[in-house]
Amino acid sequence: MTQSETHLLDTNLESYMFDLGKKARAASRALRLADAKTKSLALSQMAKEVRTVSNDILNANALDMKVAHSKGLSGAMLDRLELNSDRIEGIAVGLEAIAALPDPVGSVDETWTQPNGLTFSKVRVPIGVIGMIYESRPNVTADAGALCLKSGNACILRGGSESSNSNHAIHRALTAGLEIAGLPSDAIQLITTIDRAAVGHLLTGLNNDVDLIIPRGGKSLIKRVQSDARIPVLAHLEGLCHTYVHAAAEETMALKIILNAKMRRTGVCGSTETVLIDRAIAEVFTPKLADALNAAGCEMRGDTDCRDLSTHIIPATDTDYLTEHLAAIVNMRIVDDINMALAHIDTYGSGHTDCILTEDNDIATRFLRDIDSAICMHNTSTQFADGGEFGFGAEIGISTGRLHARGPVGAQHLTTYKYTVQSSGQIRP
Amino acid sequence: MTQSETHLLDTNLESYMFDLGKKARAASRALRLADAKTKSLALSQMAKEVRTVSNDILNANALDMKVAHSKGLSGAMLDRLELNSDRIEGIAVGLEAIAALPDPVGSVDETWTQPNGLTFSKVRVPIGVIGMIYESRPNVTADAGALCLKSGNACILRGGSESSNSNHAIHRALTAGLEIAGLPSDAIQLITTIDRAAVGHLLTGLNNDVDLIIPRGGKSLIKRVQSDARIPVLAHLEGLCHTYVHAAAEETMALKIILNAKMRRTGVCGSTETVLIDRAIAEVFTPKLADALNAAGCEMRGDTDCRDLSTHIIPATDTDYLTEHLAAIVNMRIVDDINMALAHIDTYGSGHTDCILTEDNDIATRFLRDIDSAICMHNTSTQFADGGEFGFGAEIGISTGRLHARGPVGAQHLTTYKYTVQSSGQIRP
Repeated sequence: MTQSETHLLDTNLESYMFDLGKKARAASRALRLADAKTKSLALSQMAKEVRTVSNDILNANALDMKVAHSKGLSGAMLDRLELNSDRIEGIAVGLEAIAALPDPVGSVDETWTQPNGLTFSKVRVPIGVIGMIYESRPNVTADAGALCLKSGNACILRGGSESSNSNHAIHRALTAGLEIAGLPSDAIQLITTIDRAAVGHLLTGLNNDVDLIIPRGGKSLIKRVQSDARIPVLAHLEGLCHTYVHAAAEETMALKIILNAKMRRTGVCGSTETVLIDRAIAEVFTPKLADALNAAGCEMRGDTDCRDLSTHIIPATDTDYLTEHLAAIVNMRIVDDINMALAHIDTYGSGHTDCILTEDNDIATRFLRDIDSAICMHNTSTQFADGGEFGFGAEIGISTGRLHARGPVGAQHLTTYKYTVQSSGQIRP
Repeated sequence: MTQSETHLLDTNLESYMFDLGKKARAASRALRLADAKTKSLALSQMAKEVRTVSNDILNANALDMKVAHSKGLSGAMLDRLELNSDRIEGIAVGLEAIAALPDPVGSVDETWTQPNGLTFSKVRVPIGVIGMIYESRPNVTADAGALCLKSGNACILRGGSESSNSNHAIHRALTAGLEIAGLPSDAIQLITTIDRAAVGHLLTGLNNDVDLIIPRGGKSLIKRVQSDARIPVLAHLEGLCHTYVHAAAEETMALKIILNAKMRRTGVCGSTETVLIDRAIAEVFTPKLADALNAAGCEMRGDTDCRDLSTHIIPATDTDYLTEHLAAIVNMRIVDDINMALAHIDTYGSGHTDCILTEDNDIATRFLRDIDSAICMHNTSTQFADGGEFGFGAEIGISTGRLHARGPVGAQHLTTYKYTVQSSGQIRP
């Protein structure tokens, strides 16, 4: 065990978690009423503190990296875990960016007056207490804590055990910022026991004191949280994104967009996994696309119709069309028309982001209306599926659920609303 | 067993429920794309059909009433269960009112363009499939089915077994309306087995095909649904509403409002259960209020300070302050100031509806900001806590949860959103 890890007896674990919940609820009362200036001050002080203690954070991260190496973690996991001075500066800059965002609390969605003179307003307020469960990236400790604070929510953070020391060091900088601004340090709590049962308690035992669970990580983590939680879950499952090249697509634009949608970054959830091509243009378009993707180092898996048009394309299985590759691999399929494209996306998609490429605005309008995904695009790259690109500032993830928040989740989506009703003495007849 | 009740073997029950889910999901795809006119046509045809078959509905209800009498159900339950021609006309009028509401699907919450030229719109879309579990009132079959249809959602309805025959008769009128409009009759399905295990399947076994569960009924039903469901729940728990008489309240207005807030209808969730009175005005105000409430037939339970001011007031226990009486009983308490009032509401309230009576606008603003309830009111009756009064048309209930929808839930709140992104070929740098 390294410095910050502790083991607790089962009964102690239960009371430890119960106590975290109570403290978070108490802190959420103070946060609910905290003004925008105080929250921004806390966030900019956190950034300052991250820079001040960057050596402590690097040392803590070195401990985590040593354990990770000894456990034989994969290169990708080591990369996610590793911090360096650039990444620490990135954390500080991220905190400052969140400090600078408009405060979502207190903003009025709408105001209206009924014929009887009662005036109603729908006002944004914090949700309360958010439990955040995430895996190896230590920067999520800062991002999640900051977005919860910005939106007036207290949070309980549970990072991956492999990043335990790094998370602690970053968390200390966050609580220092809270204290300087006069906000309760319990507003952002980090679960300090490495007992795996702590997550179970968070998911099932704290339903009076935690209002929402946000898991961020691999599919198995999300599935476990969704099946175990007794508290509402805002889940980001997977991005099985499609780009559909309609018969009336502009060829040069389509090639440029697909290259970007697939290859700009292959590991992000907004990257295109499947390209659907209208039969009417397939003979001309498919070989050009295949040559361009091949030159860019992308493997292509397609149906027989595709493979007849380019030798670069290897066979696709049904499983491929259901797989979020997150790699330089793309599925391809020739479709008869928009109906077949819509049916394919309905069957194989994950409701994340899907795009049509066409110059026919009626067809585009139909696609945008009929696709049942969080993000429906026309003539652009699915890699724009990102809260920053939407103008939300930072994002805590992209929700593939249908309730409360869908698509990119920024600070504004971590709020709920209440109604105020103003009257001059009316009574109900 | 009466005509429409069936029992199924366990394995058959599972496949029966699974089948309901699949059919609902398929119907939801058609409903998602149904236009406003078609849905309104279905709703007005349902109203017509309810009137046409009103004798069948009355006969079915007579069967239910006979069983209910033989089981010795309470007078209040019998009243909730009973239909007569006025109530059936009320159901038809309700359906027509929902037909006439604006269609919430496709409405655009906001549109904005980012500096790179991408145009984003946040568009209202149906949630998908809603499971609705309710108790004895047969009219809920029509209200719930109609509100789900209006918002483009398929629904699976599970009414109380005591209203089984009435629900079936009403349900037949609803599916007739769907068919006339060319919509799938599976858009509104009623669970026809009386096996109690069906609810368990609905709550836990259909999470791929049901997106949201809405329970409507007593506290024990809601608690069971919340603890068992593996699907998001939109719950209406209870309305423990407060009216706080601030020192600067206008006396005549305050008396009139409290009488209305408590006594207009005592059985609704928006009725005031506790009146808090500022100490500064208690000596004058309390006896006047006690006399007025006493004259109106309301029992009063209060703390020692209250009881010193009126002999009408009997002692209140801590449990009283936690009880939604739903009867001509009100709790009273003298408080030192707004801070003590806020603390009382925070401790004893249910986050439903709370009101301040004052002529001091600064104090009112503070109360409206600081109270963490779905509905926060100034100088009016808590009995205005009703979707109709908000202008939402019909309501399916009042949500006391914090996520997705809070307060009165109308057709518009049974939608979620998606984003459309329109571009002229931009790629992400």
